[in-house]
Amino acid sequence: MRTGKEYLEALNDGRRVWVGDEFIDNVATHPKTRAFAKLTADFYDLHHRPELEDVMTFVDEDGVRRSMMWFKPTDKESLRRKRRYHETVLRNLGAGAAPRSPDVNNSVFRTYVDDPRPWSDQSVGTDGRDLVPGILEFCDLLREGDLNAAIAFVDPQTDRSRDSAQAESPNVHVVSTNDDGIVVSGVKSVATGAVFADYINLGTFYKPGVTSEQIVFAGVPANAPGVTMINREANGRDGEETEHPMSSQGDELDTTIIFDNVFIPWERVFHLGNPEHASYYPQRVFDWVHYQAVVREMVRAELMLGLALLITEHTGTYAIPPVRARVSQFVGFMQTLKAHVVASEEDGFMTPGGTYKPNVLMFDFGRVFYLENISRLTAELLDLCGRASLVFPTEGQWQNPEFRPWLEALQSGPVGRPHDRLKISRVIRDYFMSDWGDRMAAFEGFNGTPILLIRELTIRRAEISAAGPIADLARSICGIENPERPEQTEYLAQAEYARLQDSAAGR
Amino acid sequence: MRTGKEYLEALNDGRRVWVGDEFIDNVATHPKTRAFAKLTADFYDLHHRPELEDVMTFVDEDGVRRSMMWFKPTDKESLRRKRRYHETVLRNLGAGAAPRSPDVNNSVFRTYVDDPRPWSDQSVGTDGRDLVPGILEFCDLLREGDLNAAIAFVDPQTDRSRDSAQAESPNVHVVSTNDDGIVVSGVKSVATGAVFADYINLGTFYKPGVTSEQIVFAGVPANAPGVTMINREANGRDGEETEHPMSSQGDELDTTIIFDNVFIPWERVFHLGNPEHASYYPQRVFDWVHYQAVVREMVRAELMLGLALLITEHTGTYAIPPVRARVSQFVGFMQTLKAHVVASEEDGFMTPGGTYKPNVLMFDFGRVFYLENISRLTAELLDLCGRASLVFPTEGQWQNPEFRPWLEALQSGPVGRPHDRLKISRVIRDYFMSDWGDRMAAFEGFNGTPILLIRELTIRRAEISAAGPIADLARSICGIENPERPEQTEYLAQAEYARLQDSAAGR
Amino acid sequence: MRTGKEYLEALNDGRRVWVGDEFIDNVATHPKTRAFAKLTADFYDLHHRPELEDVMTFVDEDGVRRSMMWFKPTDKESLRRKRRYHETVLRNLGAGAAPRSPDVNNSVFRTYVDDPRPWSDQSVGTDGRDLVPGILEFCDLLREGDLNAAIAFVDPQTDRSRDSAQAESPNVHVVSTNDDGIVVSGVKSVATGAVFADYINLGTFYKPGVTSEQIVFAGVPANAPGVTMINREANGRDGEETEHPMSSQGDELDTTIIFDNVFIPWERVFHLGNPEHASYYPQRVFDWVHYQAVVREMVRAELMLGLALLITEHTGTYAIPPVRARVSQFVGFMQTLKAHVVASEEDGFMTPGGTYKPNVLMFDFGRVFYLENISRLTAELLDLCGRASLVFPTEGQWQNPEFRPWLEALQSGPVGRPHDRLKISRVIRDYFMSDWGDRMAAFEGFNGTPILLIRELTIRRAEISAAGPIADLARSICGIENPERPEQTEYLAQAEYARLQDSAAGR
Amino acid sequence: MRTGKEYLEALNDGRRVWVGDEFIDNVATHPKTRAFAKLTADFYDLHHRPELEDVMTFVDEDGVRRSMMWFKPTDKESLRRKRRYHETVLRNLGAGAAPRSPDVNNSVFRTYVDDPRPWSDQSVGTDGRDLVPGILEFCDLLREGDLNAAIAFVDPQTDRSRDSAQAESPNVHVVSTNDDGIVVSGVKSVATGAVFADYINLGTFYKPGVTSEQIVFAGVPANAPGVTMINREANGRDGEETEHPMSSQGDELDTTIIFDNVFIPWERVFHLGNPEHASYYPQRVFDWVHYQAVVREMVRAELMLGLALLITEHTGTYAIPPVRARVSQFVGFMQTLKAHVVASEEDGFMTPGGTYKPNVLMFDFGRVFYLENISRLTAELLDLCGRASLVFPTEGQWQNPEFRPWLEALQSGPVGRPHDRLKISRVIRDYFMSDWGDRMAAFEGFNGTPILLIRELTIRRAEISAAGPIADLARSICGIENPERPEQTEYLAQAEYARLQDSAAGR
Repeated sequence: MRTGKEYLEALNDGRRVWVGDEFIDNVATHPKTRAFAKLTADFYDLHHRPELEDVMTFVDEDGVRRSMMWFKPTDKESLRRKRRYHETVLRNLGAGAAPRSPDVNNSVFRTYVDDPRPWSDQSVGTDGRDLVPGILEFCDLLREGDLNAAIAFVDPQTDRSRDSAQAESPNVHVVSTNDDGIVVSGVKSVATGAVFADYINLGTFYKPGVTSEQIVFAGVPANAPGVTMINREANGRDGEETEHPMSSQGDELDTTIIFDNVFIPWERVFHLGNPEHASYYPQRVFDWVHYQAVVREMVRAELMLGLALLITEHTGTYAIPPVRARVSQFVGFMQTLKAHVVASEEDGFMTPGGTYKPNVLMFDFGRVFYLENISRLTAELLDLCGRASLVFPTEGQWQNPEFRPWLEALQSGPVGRPHDRLKISRVIRDYFMSDWGDRMAAFEGFNGTPILLIRELTIRRAEISAAGPIADLARSICGIENPERPEQTEYLAQAEYARLQDSAAGR
Repeated sequence: MRTGKEYLEALNDGRRVWVGDEFIDNVATHPKTRAFAKLTADFYDLHHRPELEDVMTFVDEDGVRRSMMWFKPTDKESLRRKRRYHETVLRNLGAGAAPRSPDVNNSVFRTYVDDPRPWSDQSVGTDGRDLVPGILEFCDLLREGDLNAAIAFVDPQTDRSRDSAQAESPNVHVVSTNDDGIVVSGVKSVATGAVFADYINLGTFYKPGVTSEQIVFAGVPANAPGVTMINREANGRDGEETEHPMSSQGDELDTTIIFDNVFIPWERVFHLGNPEHASYYPQRVFDWVHYQAVVREMVRAELMLGLALLITEHTGTYAIPPVRARVSQFVGFMQTLKAHVVASEEDGFMTPGGTYKPNVLMFDFGRVFYLENISRLTAELLDLCGRASLVFPTEGQWQNPEFRPWLEALQSGPVGRPHDRLKISRVIRDYFMSDWGDRMAAFEGFNGTPILLIRELTIRRAEISAAGPIADLARSICGIENPERPEQTEYLAQAEYARLQDSAAGR
Repeated sequence: MRTGKEYLEALNDGRRVWVGDEFIDNVATHPKTRAFAKLTADFYDLHHRPELEDVMTFVDEDGVRRSMMWFKPTDKESLRRKRRYHETVLRNLGAGAAPRSPDVNNSVFRTYVDDPRPWSDQSVGTDGRDLVPGILEFCDLLREGDLNAAIAFVDPQTDRSRDSAQAESPNVHVVSTNDDGIVVSGVKSVATGAVFADYINLGTFYKPGVTSEQIVFAGVPANAPGVTMINREANGRDGEETEHPMSSQGDELDTTIIFDNVFIPWERVFHLGNPEHASYYPQRVFDWVHYQAVVREMVRAELMLGLALLITEHTGTYAIPPVRARVSQFVGFMQTLKAHVVASEEDGFMTPGGTYKPNVLMFDFGRVFYLENISRLTAELLDLCGRASLVFPTEGQWQNPEFRPWLEALQSGPVGRPHDRLKISRVIRDYFMSDWGDRMAAFEGFNGTPILLIRELTIRRAEISAAGPIADLARSICGIENPERPEQTEYLAQAEYARLQDSAAGR
Repeated sequence: MRTGKEYLEALNDGRRVWVGDEFIDNVATHPKTRAFAKLTADFYDLHHRPELEDVMTFVDEDGVRRSMMWFKPTDKESLRRKRRYHETVLRNLGAGAAPRSPDVNNSVFRTYVDDPRPWSDQSVGTDGRDLVPGILEFCDLLREGDLNAAIAFVDPQTDRSRDSAQAESPNVHVVSTNDDGIVVSGVKSVATGAVFADYINLGTFYKPGVTSEQIVFAGVPANAPGVTMINREANGRDGEETEHPMSSQGDELDTTIIFDNVFIPWERVFHLGNPEHASYYPQRVFDWVHYQAVVREMVRAELMLGLALLITEHTGTYAIPPVRARVSQFVGFMQTLKAHVVASEEDGFMTPGGTYKPNVLMFDFGRVFYLENISRLTAELLDLCGRASLVFPTEGQWQNPEFRPWLEALQSGPVGRPHDRLKISRVIRDYFMSDWGDRMAAFEGFNGTPILLIRELTIRRAEISAAGPIADLARSICGIENPERPEQTEYLAQAEYARLQDSAAGR
C-alpha cells in the first residue's frame, strides 16, 4: 500500500497548476498547497498504523492486503465495515477537513465496475470498440497503485434560460478521433481536489441541449500535455497550526481545468457520445459519494454537538435549562443523520455486479436534511458561543506575561482550563467563521448533485408517483380504487441497467 | 382472542361517563361514543381476519394463539415483526385515527413486567407487602382477556411558578390504607380513551413538590365505584360516513377522571409512595408508546405524501416543476421518519427482562423531528390543495341532477374521476381542517412526554454530556485531553434498574 | 344609513341558496345562515352607535352622514381615519370573524371609480357603448342603500398543465348579446359571503388561454333569475354561544355560484371582452382588500398576543423566563404587521382619481409576512396552552354541583378566576382548533391573490429589476456602471392607467 | 468640521495597541489597521463633499455648520433627515462595512444629554459632586472636535450559572477615589472600534451580583496612561482592493481593553456606583444605536436584493419562475425592514429633553426580525449564486492572455459583461463567505443588546403585560372583564426618568 511519502513524491510530475496568481512548481512543497498535500499523505499513512489495520485495510481474494477504499461490500455487515473505514478517515482528518479524500474520489468507480458493459455498448462514435477492458484495466491500475482520481464532471454554467446555450458552451468536447484515441478541448468548471490527484476522472452531466461531442467519460493523468489547472485563491493558512488548527491543514481547492487539445488513448475512454447514457448518471455515479457525504455530515454533526457541549460547559451557560434545550437540538441533528446512515444500510440491496448498496432515497434525503438545517444550526452554535467564537486572545497575547493574568480571568468558567477555551474557540472560528469554513459549507451544497436536482430526480422514480404503490394507503383511506399500473412510465422507459443501480425491488 | 362483539358487550358495565353535558348510558350504543367503540371493535376483529393471521397473531410458548399485542420481541427480527403488527393496525384504522388503540395502551406494561422487582422494593407505605405477584397477575389478566387498560398518568396543572403548589393540587392521592388495600381520591386530568377501556392504568409523573401520597401506580376497573369520567365535547361526526370519512369514525376522547374514595385492593397496586421511583418513569414507561408513535407518524407521513400526490395529480399542478419539488418534501418527511424507525430497531438492545428494545434516543428524536415539522408540512399540504381542501360540493349537491353537470366540470382535471377528487378533498378536510383533525394534531404534541421534557431528559443522560464520550471527537479536534470520567454523575446516581431501560451499553 | 333590521329584511328576496344538502328558504332565519346574517346586521348597527359616530361615519360633501365605508381618503390623515374605521369594525366583529364584511367587499369599487374610463374604452363587443355612466351609477346605488356587493372573481380550476384547458372551462361567459344587455352562463367557484350580499360583483382573473367571452365584469342582484348559490357545509355552530363563542357567530360561507342564462343589462356591465384588461387587475382591484387584510391580520396578531398573555398568566407559566421569551414572539409578530400598515400609509401616493392610496408593495409583503409565519405561531400558541386548548369542562359540567369542586381546583392558577380560564380556552379552541377556525386560516391564504402570484407580480415591477434603481447600491458596491435604463420594459409595456394604481412615482 | 487628514493625524497619539501578536506603532499607518483608519477618514471627508452638504451637515442654532451626527431631531421630519444622513454614510461606506462609525458611536450621548440630571443624582460615592456639568462639557468637547467616542460597555463573561461570580470578575472597577477623580482597574471585553476612536465611552451593563465598585460610566482618552488595547486577529486584507473589494476596506476590530490603574478626573465621570441606575440602561442607552442598526440592516437588505438580482441576471437563472419567486424573498426582507424603520419614525415620541425619538419596540423588533432571518437569507443568496460565489478566476488569471478566452466563455451569460460577474462574485464572497463577512454577521448578533435580552426587557414593559391594555382585545373577545390596573407594577417601579426614554404615553 502506498505511503504518504510515495504519494508526495508522485505529485512532483510537471503538472501545470496555478493557485490565484501564482504558478505552483511542486504541489508537495509550495506554501499554497503543501499543507493539503501533507493532509492527503496523512490519509495514506493512516493505512500503515498498526492499531488501525483492521479498520483501514482488508485482505483481498488473492491474499493481498489493501486499503479498504478498494473493498467491495457484498452484504450489510461488509457495508458497515466500509462505513467504519470512512468514519475513521473522517475522524482522523479533521472531521471532514478533506471532503474529497482518495477514498471518496475513487468510490465513483464502484459504479463503473459494477456493470461496465452498458458504458461501452451505449457509446456513439467508437467504431464498435469494446471499452470494457479499458475500464477494468484502469480500475486495476488505480487499485494497484492506491492512486487518487479526482472527479471532473461539472460543466460550465451556461445561460439557463435557453437550451440552445449548451451547444455554445466551452465544455470539454471531442475535437478529433483517430485509431489511437481521441483529442479533447474545453473546460471543466469545478474539479475539487484535482490538484492533489494522480488522475482526472473526466465525465459530464446531462443537460438539455448537450451535444454528442460533449459526452466524454475518460481517465486523464493530472500531468497530461495540454492540461492546465487554475484555482481560486487558497483558503488554507500555511503554518498557522496554533492559531488556526483547521485552516492550517490546507485547502483542497476547487479547480477549473483547461483541456487544450489533450490526447486520450482509447483504453482510457469509458464512454463516448451518448447524451441519453449521460442522463442516467447525474445521480447514480455519485451514489457512493453521497453515501459517504451523509457519513461525513453525521461525523460533523457529532463534532458540532461536542463543540456546543464544550463551549457552554466552559462558559457555564450549560447549567441554564433553556440553553440545555438548545444544545439538545444538536443531539437531534446527529441522531437524524445517523438514522439515515443506519437505515440506508439496513434497507440496502444487491446491484447487478453483486455489490450491496445502501438505499439511495434514504441517504439522499439524509443529505437533504443536512442541507436544509445546517445554516440554522451553525447560527445556533455561534449564538450559543456568544462572543467566544470571535473575541479571544491570540497565543502570542496569551503568552505575554503582562496580559496573562487578565486573559486567564477572562477565559475562566466553572469547568475546564482557561487555555482550553482558546482551543475550542479557535476550532469553532475556523470551522464556522472563516474563508476556509465557509468554503467547506458551500462545498456540501453543490458537491455532486444539488438539492433541487435530487428532488426532481426523486419525484421521477417509479415508486414515487401518484399511480404507484406509495399512494395506495392514501387511496385506501379515501376509498378510491387502485389504478392499473401503467405498462410503461417515464421512469421505466429509462435503461434498465441504470435503474438497477437504484434498488433491486419495486419496478 | 376477543372479538369485537365481546368487546362491545363488555362496555355496558355501568361505568359513569359524561360527554359534554350528556350522561352516556352505554358507551357502545350512545351516539356520542358508539362510532369509536365500533372502531375499537374493528381493532379486535382485525385479529380474526384469516389473511392477516400471520401479522396480527402469534402462537405463544404454550401453543396458544394470541394477539401480537402480547408478543415480546427478543431480537431485531421479532421487533420488526411487532412493528409490522402496529403498522397493520394503523393502516386499517384510518392511518392513526385511534392513537390509543389497545395495542398502544397495553404496551406500557412491557416495561412493568420486564423488571417488576424494583416497583415493589422501592415502595413506601406498603408494610413490606410484595407487589410483584400482583403486577404479574394483572398483566396475565389483561392478556387472557385481550383487555384494554387506558393510561391515566397526567396530573392536574398546578401553578408552574412555585413547587409548593404541587402539594395543594387535586391530584389523585391515598386517603387511607387498610389490610385489603388503599383508598384514593382526586383527579387525573387527561386519560385518553379511558371511556373505551376495560381498566384504568393509574400512574403519575414526578414533579418537584409531589408528595408521597400522590405517588400511586395501580389498576382500576373502568366501572369501579367512585370513578366518574367526564369528557370534553366529542369531535366525532356520528353517521356522516360519506361526507366525513375520518371524523365519522369517532373520537377517542380525552377523559378527566374523578376518583371519589375509590378502593383499590393490594393486588392491583403496582407501586406506592416513592417520588424518586416516580421520577424514573416519565420517559421510560412510555418508551414503547413513543416507539409506536414514531411508527404512527411514519404511516401518517406516507398518507400525507399520498394525498399530496393524488390531489396535485387531480388538479394538474403535479406537472409543474416547482410543485413537484414541493411534493418531494413529503418524500423526505416520510424517509426521515422511516429512518428513525429502522435505525432505532437496528441499534436496539436487550433489557434486564430479555426484551429487545429499540434505541430510545433514536425514536425520541424521530418524534421530535415530526413535531418540529408537522405544522409546516400541514400548511404546505393545504397550500398545495389550494381551494380543494375547503370549497367542494357535498354528496347531496353532487347527486342533484340540476347541479351535476356544473360540478363534474368543476372537479375535472387531467387525471382521475371527478367524484374521486371529492373523496380526496374530504379526507384532507377531515384530517387537517377540522375539530377532529386538530385534536389529532394536538394529541401528538402532548401524548406521554412533551418535546421540552424529552430534550431535558436527553441532556441528562450519561452519554450526552460534555464529560462523556460524545464530546471526544470535539476534544480530539480541539487538541484537548479527555477528562477523567467521573465516578458518579447525576445520571449514574439514578437507580441502575431504571437506566437499564435506556440501553444495555455505554455507562 | 341602513340598519341591521333593514338589512335582514332585504335578505328575504327569493334568492336560491343551498347550504350543504339543505335549501335555505330565508337566509336571515334559517339555522344554517341566521347567525352570520345577524353578525352582518351587527355591522350595520355599529354605525348607529352614538359613541362610535365619529369613527364609523362621516359627513360627505353634500352634508349627508354616511358610513365610513364610502369615505375616500385624500391624504395620509384621512387614510388613517379609514384604517381606524376598519379596525373598529374588526374589533367589534370577533377580531376578524367576518373577513368579507361589507366595508371590505365594497372597497373593490374604490379602484373602479378612481379611473373608470379605461374599463369602458378597453372593452370588446360592446358596440361602442360607454360603460362609464353605468359604473358610476352602480356605485351610487350601493352607497345610497349601504348595500353589500360580494366579490365573485374566482374561476374554476382547470388543468394547470396546459393553457388550452382554460377555453374548455365552465367559467362564466357571454352566451348572447342584445340591445338591452348580455346573457351569461357558467360558474364562479368561490364567492365568499355571496349568500349574505345584495349584489354579486362579477369579475374574472386573467389566465393564459382565457377567451374573450370569459371576460365579464358586472353587477348582478343576488336574486337574479338563473342565479343559484351552492355552498359547502356551514362551520358555524348556531346557538352555542357559551361553549363556542366564535363559531356561534356564524360562517360567511364560500359560495359557488351557478349562472344559468342570467341576463345583465348594459348599465350593470363594467367591462367586457378584453383579456389584456383583465390581466391588469388580479392584483390592483384587490389592493384595498389587501390593505384591509393586513389591518385584519394586525388585529388578529394583537388577539393572539393577548391570548398568549392571558393563558400563560392563568396557568402560571408566564413566570418562567423561557416561556416569556416565547410569548414575546407574539409582540414581534404584532409589531411587524403594524409596521407594514403604518409604513404603507406613510409611503402612500395619489392615484389619478385623487385617492391617497397606501404603498402597495408594503402591504402586500405584510400579508406575505403573515402567511409565512402564521402556521408556526399558531402551533406556538397552542403549545404554550398545553392541554388548556383542548381538555376543559363544558359549561354544563362546570355548573354540575357534583363536579364543581374538582373542576375549580383544576382550573385554578396563580392569577385570575377559574371560570375565566374556560372562557379563554374556548376562544382559543374555536379560533385555532376547529372547523370554523381552520376555514378562517385557509381563507387568509387564498383571498384575492395567493402569495406565489404576489411574488411573481412583484418581480415584474419596474422598480424591482436588475436593470432598475433597486440594484444601484449593489452595482455601486461592486464597482459596476449603472446600465442605461431601457426605454420600454415588460412592465412599462402595460397600460399606463393600470400602473398608475401602483404608485405615483418611479416609473 | 474635522477632515479625514486631521483625524488620521490625531490617531498617532501614543495609544498602546496590539493586533494579534503585533504591536501597532501608529494606527494610521500600520498595515494591520491603516485600511480601516482610512475608511474612517473617508467618513469625515464625506462631510466636506459639496454635493452632500445638505444631507451630511446642518447649521446649528449658533449658525455653525456641523456634521449631522450632532443634529438633534425634534420632530418626525427632522428624524427622517437624520436617517437620510445615516443612510448616506452607510451607502458610501460599503453598505455597512463600518458598523461603529463615529455617527453611531456618538449617538449614545443623545440619551445622556437628553436628561443628565438623574445620572448625577443617582450616583453613589461621589461625595455629592454634581456630575451634570461634566457630562455636558464632555459632549461639547466631542461635538466641537467632531471626535469619536467608542463604546466600551461589555463586561467579562463570568460563570452564568451563579450570581456570585460577578463580584469575582475582572470587570473594570473603582480602586480608589480622591479629590481629583477616581482610579479604575479591570477589563472591558469587547469595545468595537476602540482602536480607531479618540475617546473610550466607558460604561457597564447591570447583571445580578454586580457590585457598586463595578458601576462606572466615564470618558477616557484612548491614549490614557494605563490603557492597553488588545485585539483579535484583523480580518481586513490590506491592499487587496481588486480581489477583495470589501475586506480590503479594513476591519474595525473588537477590542479588549485593559485598564491598569487608570486615573479619570471627576469632570469625565458620568455616573458612579449605583447598580439600579445601571439596570435602566442596557437597552435605553443603546436605543439610538439600535435605531441606526435597523437602518443599516435595511440598507444591507437592499444590497442583498441587488446582488441577488445581478447574479441571477448574469447567470440567466433569473428567467426561471421559481428562481424569481426566490429572489422576491429579498424584496420582502427589505420591505419588512423598511416598514420597521418608517413605522418607528411615524410612531415616535418626545423625550423629556425635547428629542423626537423613534418608537423603541418598533425598531427593536425590526432588529429581531433581521437576526431571525439573516442566516436563512444568506444561505438562500449563496444557493442562488451556485458556484459563482466560490469558483471564479482571480484578476491575475483573468489578465493572463492564455486563460482569457476560456475564462470569458465561463463568465458569459445572457446579460452583462463577463468581467462584471467577477466583480459581483467578489463582493458576495467577501460579504458572505469570508472571515471579514462572518465577523460582520456575528457583530449584528451581539452589538449592544442580544435578542434574548430584548425579548426579556420587552415583556417587562407596562404595555406588554396580561394586566395591561394590550390584552384588552383578547379579554373583550373572551368576555372577561378588564382588571383594575395595578397602582404599581414591576415596570412602574422603575425610575420614571428611565421609562420616559421608552415613550411618552401609555403608563
